[in-house]
Amino acid sequence: MLNLKDKIRTQGMIMPGNILNVGSFLNQQVDIELYDEIGQEFHRRFSNEHVTRILTIEASGIGIACMTGMYFKVPVVFARKFRAKNVDDNLYSSDVISYTHGINYTITVPRAYLHESDSVLLIDDFLANGCALEGLVDLVKIAGAKLAGAGAVIEKGFQNGGKRLREMNIRLESLAIIESMSVEEGIKFRE
Amino acid sequence: MLNLKDKIRTQGMIMPGNILNVGSFLNQQVDIELYDEIGQEFHRRFSNEHVTRILTIEASGIGIACMTGMYFKVPVVFARKFRAKNVDDNLYSSDVISYTHGINYTITVPRAYLHESDSVLLIDDFLANGCALEGLVDLVKIAGAKLAGAGAVIEKGFQNGGKRLREMNIRLESLAIIESMSVEEGIKFRE
Repeated sequence: MLNLKDKIRTQGMIMPGNILNVGSFLNQQVDIELYDEIGQEFHRRFSNEHVTRILTIEASGIGIACMTGMYFKVPVVFARKFRAKNVDDNLYSSDVISYTHGINYTITVPRAYLHESDSVLLIDDFLANGCALEGLVDLVKIAGAKLAGAGAVIEKGFQNGGKRLREMNIRLESLAIIESMSVEEGIKFRE
Repeated sequence: MLNLKDKIRTQGMIMPGNILNVGSFLNQQVDIELYDEIGQEFHRRFSNEHVTRILTIEASGIGIACMTGMYFKVPVVFARKFRAKNVDDNLYSSDVISYTHGINYTITVPRAYLHESDSVLLIDDFLANGCALEGLVDLVKIAGAKLAGAGAVIEKGFQNGGKRLREMNIRLESLAIIESMSVEEGIKFRE
């Protein structure tokens, strides 16, 4: 994913609090050809896994998950985020603590959209502390489904989410792993 | 879009308050092949328009807008929704009143993602009272950009959003227009 790394390097903006703003091509504004490459690349990396469903989280994961779903030709489901605990019996739910934004929230997915027979690929744009992806892992577990793996477009390698997921023996594929970043020295990728 | 109408008829659930739940294939769970057909169909219908950017609104518009963007090969931007008024100078914003959910909210898009030179196609999943789409029209106007048109997957023809947009001389293409719906008589489409 040379194109991805180039864009992160040239268009990513390092913000206070170790935030990497890639909104101009990966989130709120989508470089659609890059999205297509990302979808193809996730498909290539997980092509030897049996995948029946893709699960992501609103909002910025949805487009990437759809482009990936196009190549797998499987349904894409997104978990919703709520500030308050949602107690509907028809939902699977998991509590997530976001260190980045300093808030807690609950993610939910209707039981009808995640089955025991599923083999689920998780897709998200960012992996930092891994709280969002761990919440999705939890939903898959509660549903009794199989976890095929997890794909993140950008992993902040200097935060511990990737390490934790790999220690849980989850097959994790990150398309770009940032080893370090600072305004002074820019962005360094893990080789 | 026969496939779309069939799915609405067979999988759509009519809920209290004239809500049509199509979450099992169009929103929270995505039938990816249907999304692809929808993207192609919007491209076909607006192929004679000059489109430089697609604008939608989080969350359920994002996937559909991305699939449409794939065929136009243009950037896709989504507006964010906030309950509180967001006053950042770097954002275009518009206030939206949602009759369906009985709440007011503000939609915003960074100025950097919408330019005066753009010709914008609006895409959304639903058109009922048209408040969300009118908010997007407003953002395009504030940015000084040209509006190429608006595409909705499902229009509730018995509510007045479509009528209002057409009266504003906006080229609106709805892939399925529901003339009437009730638990007793099911869903009737406009021919």
